[in-house]
Amino acid sequence: MQIVLLSGGSGKRLFPLSNEIRAKQFIKIFEHGTKHESMLQRVFRQIKNNFPNAAITVSTSKAQEKILRKYVDSEVAISAEPCRRNTFPAIALTAAFLKTKNISADEPIIICPIDPYVEEDFFAQFETMASLIKKSAANLILLGIKPTYASEKYGYIIPASKDNVSQVLEFKEKPDAESARKYIHRGGLWNGGVFACKLSYLLKKSRELLQTDNYADLLNNYSELPDISFDYAVSEHEKNIKVVRYNGEWKDVGTWNTLTEVMQEHSVGKVYFDSTCENSHVINETDLPVVAMGIKDIVVAASADGILIADKTQSSYIKPIAEKIHEPIRFAEKSWGTYTVIDSDNHSLTIKVILTAGARMRYHSHERRNEVWTITQGKGRVILDGEVKNVSAGNVIEIPAGMKHTVIADTDLKIIEVQLGEDISVEDKVLWEDLI
Amino acid sequence: MQIVLLSGGSGKRLFPLSNEIRAKQFIKIFEHGTKHESMLQRVFRQIKNNFPNAAITVSTSKAQEKILRKYVDSEVAISAEPCRRNTFPAIALTAAFLKTKNISADEPIIICPIDPYVEEDFFAQFETMASLIKKSAANLILLGIKPTYASEKYGYIIPASKDNVSQVLEFKEKPDAESARKYIHRGGLWNGGVFACKLSYLLKKSRELLQTDNYADLLNNYSELPDISFDYAVSEHEKNIKVVRYNGEWKDVGTWNTLTEVMQEHSVGKVYFDSTCENSHVINETDLPVVAMGIKDIVVAASADGILIADKTQSSYIKPIAEKIHEPIRFAEKSWGTYTVIDSDNHSLTIKVILTAGARMRYHSHERRNEVWTITQGKGRVILDGEVKNVSAGNVIEIPAGMKHTVIADTDLKIIEVQLGEDISVEDKVLWEDLI
Repeated sequence: MQIVLLSGGSGKRLFPLSNEIRAKQFIKIFEHGTKHESMLQRVFRQIKNNFPNAAITVSTSKAQEKILRKYVDSEVAISAEPCRRNTFPAIALTAAFLKTKNISADEPIIICPIDPYVEEDFFAQFETMASLIKKSAANLILLGIKPTYASEKYGYIIPASKDNVSQVLEFKEKPDAESARKYIHRGGLWNGGVFACKLSYLLKKSRELLQTDNYADLLNNYSELPDISFDYAVSEHEKNIKVVRYNGEWKDVGTWNTLTEVMQEHSVGKVYFDSTCENSHVINETDLPVVAMGIKDIVVAASADGILIADKTQSSYIKPIAEKIHEPIRFAEKSWGTYTVIDSDNHSLTIKVILTAGARMRYHSHERRNEVWTITQGKGRVILDGEVKNVSAGNVIEIPAGMKHTVIADTDLKIIEVQLGEDISVEDKVLWEDLI
Repeated sequence: MQIVLLSGGSGKRLFPLSNEIRAKQFIKIFEHGTKHESMLQRVFRQIKNNFPNAAITVSTSKAQEKILRKYVDSEVAISAEPCRRNTFPAIALTAAFLKTKNISADEPIIICPIDPYVEEDFFAQFETMASLIKKSAANLILLGIKPTYASEKYGYIIPASKDNVSQVLEFKEKPDAESARKYIHRGGLWNGGVFACKLSYLLKKSRELLQTDNYADLLNNYSELPDISFDYAVSEHEKNIKVVRYNGEWKDVGTWNTLTEVMQEHSVGKVYFDSTCENSHVINETDLPVVAMGIKDIVVAASADGILIADKTQSSYIKPIAEKIHEPIRFAEKSWGTYTVIDSDNHSLTIKVILTAGARMRYHSHERRNEVWTITQGKGRVILDGEVKNVSAGNVIEIPAGMKHTVIADTDLKIIEVQLGEDISVEDKVLWEDLI
């Protein structure tokens, strides 16, 4: 059994903690022991508890690949899309990727989004699904989630019976509440995007719909592939398709409203509630104290990128308002650490750069800005136009435009970087081959 | 007529915009034309519109003196308390200060807090009060504010009649609502702390209660003076006391609840409301976007020192919770400009320093920290151990511990200052005599 986790979903629904480059699965919001873990960390932990030797591949975008690598074990494979497409091209690319790894065509593949909020027994269903695939009980086995209410937000799978495993009769896209109630009455299940099939099945669908199952071909033409979902391209047309019923807890935590429902604590970060607050949550990623008084059914989220104060129900409608905000992104997680804009104006930008021990930036230069680095913590080496220099807290490095530079962190390293120029832009970056 | 404005009241009731060093009268919150003005600027504008040549003295603390000077005309005199005392010592010190300026002992003095939120005709009452004092109609003339509701927050003045000018029968401290209603029925007026008397009267009271009316004596022994209010020390014992009735609008805007009532706009700064917000105010001093969705009767305030989200009624009870927060102050207004901490950790502090053209820091050194200054905007001169050097955007100045240094801004100047040391403290500052 191979597990493929689909890690997509960057977006603004969890503003200001998610944005174009920061996906919700990386936000550390769930209490676990004395720390907080992200949705991604939680799901990996749960899968490992079910299947200690699980073979996992994550399908994600090129942009997320390096950050993902920081959070998953080295045995986990990553299939990176060169650009964002819908689930069918992503799954086809991953299938072709698995073929290059010599996975048997008969191997059961479980496909699952990376961000369901579930209890551990959810993943135990993978075994049932894989064994049904092995027995060739169907070409495609879905996991159907027993609805807890007549939601208008989810797709429904209509099974032939209410048995634990049943033939699928049809799919219904997000219905109105009245139809949802009817579907549930008929035994309808939520479609959580989890399914199993053989690798050969995915490769066959790829050949049929994309004319190839060759990894290099798919990769090279990726931006040309059709933007279609797996459900639309495959599941809805498959006749030999069954559904496994899952009766346990499953939550889609894609909005502040649903996310706060599953948080174990009412606050993360430096937060002071007075005694009259009710059913409110504050997630504070900043260093500033947040004081909440007498608020009811409110979610507050604060980060380097902004501050949200929303009635919980209303927070579901954040997308159009978050899209009105055209601000440069101030916090970013990088392969080498984090980057936080702490001050900005027309001709300068001040950034807190934190590198983790052993990490390094790529060797690069800028054409239109000078930089001043003040090392405030740790030890490392900078390379400036080919010259290696040891640096530690207190050192100041001036990097004029055009100078090739990088830094290698020998311990955790903190740098206050002042960028100076008429035209400061993240695009202004020339990469050079690493020297050491 | 001499007008004395009492500018006290630093405190945490308007957290995070007011604190131990930042008084509420400096917060720029009231729309005026295309800009925002502070309570202080509003009151000065209103007084000047009534009395273009008003002789004004501001009684304030030493800590506020320099900031105050930035906002008031050079003709305005400032009487600075060496430390914080109550209103009686502050008024006695100011009276002694006026005596040193050769103000006649018969001159009517009007005492008024610096932060009433009123319409312009409020100040027109000063003339009436001064003329009553001149006619020696009483030793003390109070301004009584016609109550708009049976408030439990204010002191009441009980007059002998409901006439425009009446003898005062007695004072009642903050009553319960039931008593307040009775007082109002008897014609009771709110005590807004505004009164008139002759300079000689204040000097006499100073001699009686503080054994001197000599300015130098009061100044030198200031910390030993009793911590008593003028009402308690003087008004409540005065038999020959009258009150002038004021029927216009008067508002005490000392809490977020009352302050937002008089704001002309629902937001200050970068704020996005969705269409479902009701009766809510957001004051955002940060560069970050604030998004508010579906909130009702809420005040939000964000600054470099913190974030408040409060139900408006509940916001009146902020003091105990704000006092629990023990964070170093991150934003400060200085005589030379502003100072904002933009990043802090154990052994470094990064600060955005903005100097206004013509301003300068005092020549100083630090014993336990190095500093790195990167000039990001403007032109100026730094002096480093006696050596003067021109600086402009892009220059980097390294200042090791022990080095005497200062900067003079020839244009508006912006500096990113990184402080580095094991023991960074605002106390670590040695002042030296200015060289140029």
